[in-house]
Amino acid sequence: MYVILVYDIEEKRVAKMLKLCRRYLNWIQNSVFEGEITDVKLKELIHEARKIMDKEADSLIVFKSRQAKWLEKMVIGKEKNELDNIL
Amino acid sequence: MYVILVYDIEEKRVAKMLKLCRRYLNWIQNSVFEGEITDVKLKELIHEARKIMDKEADSLIVFKSRQAKWLEKMVIGKEKNELDNIL
Repeated sequence: MYVILVYDIEEKRVAKMLKLCRRYLNWIQNSVFEGEITDVKLKELIHEARKIMDKEADSLIVFKSRQAKWLEKMVIGKEKNELDNIL
Repeated sequence: MYVILVYDIEEKRVAKMLKLCRRYLNWIQNSVFEGEITDVKLKELIHEARKIMDKEADSLIVFKSRQAKWLEKMVIGKEKNELDNIL
């Protein structure tokens, strides 16, 4: 399954969340990730994310698509993940 | 067509971008929008966005899906757009 994950997390928790999401998905913009992931791994990611998040303040949205080809991606402006692929 | 739009824009330009995107799509998280939009309207939105953006610094990503039903959305934590629907 292919997912797009976006979060809005308070600054003090954002570093942990970034690190967690990068273990499972590709970082494509400030707080946006994408990638192929299994159901089991996605459940694991969400489970770990809930531990980091303050559910009254933070938000996490996951869009799931059964196939990547059903989504067409357009990037306008700067591609933020150039360095990320190297590091 | 159904789209998810995410941006990462420098603070001094973000208010303009937010206002622009809200004219075309539903605001669902800090810098994330979704909604049904025609090809023509999307082109118009991107054209206007380019005028606001500094392409060396800012980033805009649009995921297009021919049908909303191909995407399943999960929201964890706070739903940020509750107020937005009222305002």
